[in-house]
Amino acid sequence: MASHGVEEMTMKQVILRDYVSGFPKESDMYITTASIKLTVPQGSNRVIVKNLYLSCDPYMRHRMAKQLTASYIDSFKPGSVISGCGVAKVLDSGHPNFKKGDIVWGMTGWEEYSLITAPETLFKVQHTDVPLSYYTGILGMPGMTAYAGFHEVCSPKKGDYVFISAASGAVGQLVGQFAKLLGCYVVGSAGSKEKVNLLKNKFGFNEAFNYKEEPDLDATLKRYFPDGIDIYFENVGGKMLDAVLLNIRNHGRIAVCGMISQYNLEEPDGVHNLMDLVKKRVRMEGFLVADYYHLYPKFIEMVLPYIKEGQIVYVEDMAEGLESGPAALIGLFSGRNVGKQVVVVAHE
Amino acid sequence: MASHGVEEMTMKQVILRDYVSGFPKESDMYITTASIKLTVPQGSNRVIVKNLYLSCDPYMRHRMAKQLTASYIDSFKPGSVISGCGVAKVLDSGHPNFKKGDIVWGMTGWEEYSLITAPETLFKVQHTDVPLSYYTGILGMPGMTAYAGFHEVCSPKKGDYVFISAASGAVGQLVGQFAKLLGCYVVGSAGSKEKVNLLKNKFGFNEAFNYKEEPDLDATLKRYFPDGIDIYFENVGGKMLDAVLLNIRNHGRIAVCGMISQYNLEEPDGVHNLMDLVKKRVRMEGFLVADYYHLYPKFIEMVLPYIKEGQIVYVEDMAEGLESGPAALIGLFSGRNVGKQVVVVAHE
Repeated sequence: MASHGVEEMTMKQVILRDYVSGFPKESDMYITTASIKLTVPQGSNRVIVKNLYLSCDPYMRHRMAKQLTASYIDSFKPGSVISGCGVAKVLDSGHPNFKKGDIVWGMTGWEEYSLITAPETLFKVQHTDVPLSYYTGILGMPGMTAYAGFHEVCSPKKGDYVFISAASGAVGQLVGQFAKLLGCYVVGSAGSKEKVNLLKNKFGFNEAFNYKEEPDLDATLKRYFPDGIDIYFENVGGKMLDAVLLNIRNHGRIAVCGMISQYNLEEPDGVHNLMDLVKKRVRMEGFLVADYYHLYPKFIEMVLPYIKEGQIVYVEDMAEGLESGPAALIGLFSGRNVGKQVVVVAHE
Repeated sequence: MASHGVEEMTMKQVILRDYVSGFPKESDMYITTASIKLTVPQGSNRVIVKNLYLSCDPYMRHRMAKQLTASYIDSFKPGSVISGCGVAKVLDSGHPNFKKGDIVWGMTGWEEYSLITAPETLFKVQHTDVPLSYYTGILGMPGMTAYAGFHEVCSPKKGDYVFISAASGAVGQLVGQFAKLLGCYVVGSAGSKEKVNLLKNKFGFNEAFNYKEEPDLDATLKRYFPDGIDIYFENVGGKMLDAVLLNIRNHGRIAVCGMISQYNLEEPDGVHNLMDLVKKRVRMEGFLVADYYHLYPKFIEMVLPYIKEGQIVYVEDMAEGLESGPAALIGLFSGRNVGKQVVVVAHE
């Protein structure tokens, strides 16, 4: 594609059909075709990219709903292409930071090519000697989330008892490995035997359990943490949080990253044991990765050697083709994915 | 009473009848008489005190229940005298820090005289030119609670929007005044018109409301905080907390001091809006005053001049006589008290 050309390409897009309430379905989205010019108009500072890998993330559920009040993130528009984090290759650029051939990651459209109207939000990929899809996960937003949530919010120290829910997911698998590297005792929960095996045998957690097989989560946590929990990395909310509150230790910390078990409920579950925050002087803190990107260079410097030396591993669940996107995205909410869910739009 | 004497005195005591579940009743306690020797045995380091003022505090509800698990504080023993914070006069002392005639505050019995077996936990009152009953309140545990909770946990700054529940109580009235002194905008909730008047006209809150007259607390908070809440000083829990979560601002802080609305429920209310902790990056932190007594001298140095200059006022609700103790204590849970509830055992 010559940058002086004005040819239009036909491409596929994933469109939100209408605002979603309750559990999202594949049919809440549909695939359509659209045309796009693969050149940036003269004088524009925009960037045209070819999307390679798209990231499926739980927070996207909020964007599928009509926001009733101002929120930290906008809703998708019914009838329009949805967006999310992705890895892409620059085809044409009017922005001085990017040139044709660069690999970038950041917010892009769920479509084959995207016109990026705010290219200053893109990160240029400096290290291409790792799988590029990692920039949707360990080297992208989920990685940064795990790093900031664990190191900046949890105040971790060697020997802490750490519990992680949704522990085999994009963020959880990393939090557990960071905690192990620091010398913590780490237990994770997940929703299948396969995931529990991953946690124990691939990610090196001390212990792991399948929450679906545990009718009494309080008793379960007492079994894995007879001396209580110092740090809870919260990804699920609801009943698990209530059980953790009963088992957290004095001066415990709860970093609230998300509450995926709650996103599709009409009314979120009630959490009953908050008085334990007082009795045990617990700090419970919500965070958003967007507040921590100033640490991204430091994070990359830390994590890349670990990846290259095999001290940190990362499991991805690859869905091939943009058409597989809607199913991959909604699969997050039933836990169908094993590891980080990625949609492969193109391999390069 | 000569310190070499061995005479026995007959005195009144307040006894817990049995562990309490649900709403405590006056009849959960009874008055009895006991005898006590008002001298410390030779060689003992104990202290004998005459109790002057006893403090009624919400946390005492936990001590009336049978603790099913290890807790930050022991249960009272059925059939035994209950205990709590109080102000007392030393009658005889085997401890080098205390001598006859000293005024002290700290843990003592709900009885006319007490043998203090751990006198190292007592504070010697250095300033007696203020009402001595203040050492059950503004100059004692609740004062220190308000100071530590606000200044150490809430990270307050000038201009912050501050909301306080149970705002006319022993702790709340002080938090509001500390916040005003710092230049915050302060709104309090309480359970009667009289208390609301106190908040606005005596304690100088910017606004106050009677939560019993507000069917939709979310709408109420939106009315008083159109731009949202920066700091919530939490004394009540339940529905109020849920409404605050909807109205707290980005990077808000919730200091959890107590949840009095929940203490008498078989199962605490469910709190549904915890995902707002994430969306708005909120820190919610429980605390216990016991962790902050190293700051007590600094606190006294700060607060005494304010009291003497009338810049901080303190409202007490005095119940006369030890016999009035059970009714005064349970009155906390229906909000019968106006200001800090004190039981006057003796005026000196």
